[in-house]
Amino acid sequence: MKASLKSILSLTTLFFISACGADDSAWRKLELNNTALLTLPHGKVVIELAPQFSPKHVAQFSELTKQGFYDGTKFYRVIDGFVAQAGPKDGSKKDKSVPLLEMESQWKTDKNWSFTQVQKQDLFAQQTGFKDSFAIAYQAGEKQDSGSAWLTHCPGTLAMARGNEADSASSHFYFVIGQAPRYLDDIMTIFGRVVYGMQHVQAIQRTEVVEGEYAVDHRDFTKIIKMQLMSDVVKVEQIHIEVENTESSAFAERLVKRRARDGAFFYKKPPPVLDVCQIPIRSRIVQ
Amino acid sequence: MKASLKSILSLTTLFFISACGADDSAWRKLELNNTALLTLPHGKVVIELAPQFSPKHVAQFSELTKQGFYDGTKFYRVIDGFVAQAGPKDGSKKDKSVPLLEMESQWKTDKNWSFTQVQKQDLFAQQTGFKDSFAIAYQAGEKQDSGSAWLTHCPGTLAMARGNEADSASSHFYFVIGQAPRYLDDIMTIFGRVVYGMQHVQAIQRTEVVEGEYAVDHRDFTKIIKMQLMSDVVKVEQIHIEVENTESSAFAERLVKRRARDGAFFYKKPPPVLDVCQIPIRSRIVQ
Repeated sequence: MKASLKSILSLTTLFFISACGADDSAWRKLELNNTALLTLPHGKVVIELAPQFSPKHVAQFSELTKQGFYDGTKFYRVIDGFVAQAGPKDGSKKDKSVPLLEMESQWKTDKNWSFTQVQKQDLFAQQTGFKDSFAIAYQAGEKQDSGSAWLTHCPGTLAMARGNEADSASSHFYFVIGQAPRYLDDIMTIFGRVVYGMQHVQAIQRTEVVEGEYAVDHRDFTKIIKMQLMSDVVKVEQIHIEVENTESSAFAERLVKRRARDGAFFYKKPPPVLDVCQIPIRSRIVQ
Repeated sequence: MKASLKSILSLTTLFFISACGADDSAWRKLELNNTALLTLPHGKVVIELAPQFSPKHVAQFSELTKQGFYDGTKFYRVIDGFVAQAGPKDGSKKDKSVPLLEMESQWKTDKNWSFTQVQKQDLFAQQTGFKDSFAIAYQAGEKQDSGSAWLTHCPGTLAMARGNEADSASSHFYFVIGQAPRYLDDIMTIFGRVVYGMQHVQAIQRTEVVEGEYAVDHRDFTKIIKMQLMSDVVKVEQIHIEVENTESSAFAERLVKRRARDGAFFYKKPPPVLDVCQIPIRSRIVQ
């Protein structure tokens, strides 16, 4: 009983704090020109782009998408539990036609910057949390206003592939389809995340097989039927998505509950910690 | 150059230590009566069972499997990024015909017990590592010989579902298909893991949809064509699997390399830490 009162009080505090913010809506509608629609032979996938974090990568990806650059290209490197990677044939004329991009990973935070903290002392970062529904890591600076932050790899993350050089990404991209490869954080440019249809990303034909098994014929690799910005999709086929607003008090409340594991199912309590990649950010389809 | 010499030296030490163990083979062949073959409409999945950790659960699962209990049942609760759960209809005669199982999760370790350590200060446990190719967590005891250990949830983990009571598991099982739900560690009985065909588990029809989407018709739920012990499969259709021996020096060397991230691709080094669920344990098919 004591515990329940305490959590009601802390929830009330959260509501109160968040009520001072600009927008406490539990849901946020995605802008159509900031959303991509990937049509696969077996289903549709919707991606939220992140120009606020990786403006040059989103600009290049959006421009290529508008040109139909990805249409007909294949997922040519798909490793179960790791990534599904797509783009034009490596080293082809089409591949080489695209300018290289400068890495956009870590950014400096100033004293006005804030985020929704999830966990301190995460395995790979001082702190983890969410900003605009994207999973991030945060490192406090020596001074109060000189921290740094970066997007983290979780299942469904969209990032640009690259060569060995930092600034060698161009058009090849990958989705994370397994346990978060957090060791890639801050050395790859993440620029989006899957908000709908992740099961179709999971069903993409794997291209790597185990030893002793027949290789997969490249003609069976999964093809991108079409990649479009949602704003360029004919109206009747547009998918309008709302995602959880991770800056809202409703979301803060959900984090508190998820950490507490108060349900009867938890006959023994797990440690009160949260893996930032194991918190589903809900989406819903709206008219 | 200095760093390279250092890592060569530490590898040599590892080889030397492991050379004193009983079996230093890099691969371990799975016994056919300790392996299950799950035939889905779209592919075959091989499971390694863990009688050394969860003897009663494996015994019951094996007995039910031999009876053809699971054949024709469906994956009735499939949540993308979380679990794919199957078994007979909840509360049905078939469901109720099965005796309840006592929880088998944590076990005490004595002074002769050993494991391959992966990480200290993991988010959910004092230590993580591998034992017999299964991901585990370990907590040292007050005395040297009174620690405890338990299997951890990772993608591909097979565990028995249950009701709210600890000892209420019976026949319904689930595979983990997303970021490791580590908060379920030690309150569920894990009794196996996928060693082959995980991409087919990932392609199982999801039963839960997002708000605003049409519900999935239960007739479209993925059916289990057949669940068999591999020893009961006709010889020409048996799949013989070897898995990495996580107690070998070859595996220890792989952990050292994976932590060091020495490749040219890592122009900036990630933290030298490893997530136990982000280390693929390799399998191969043999004759």
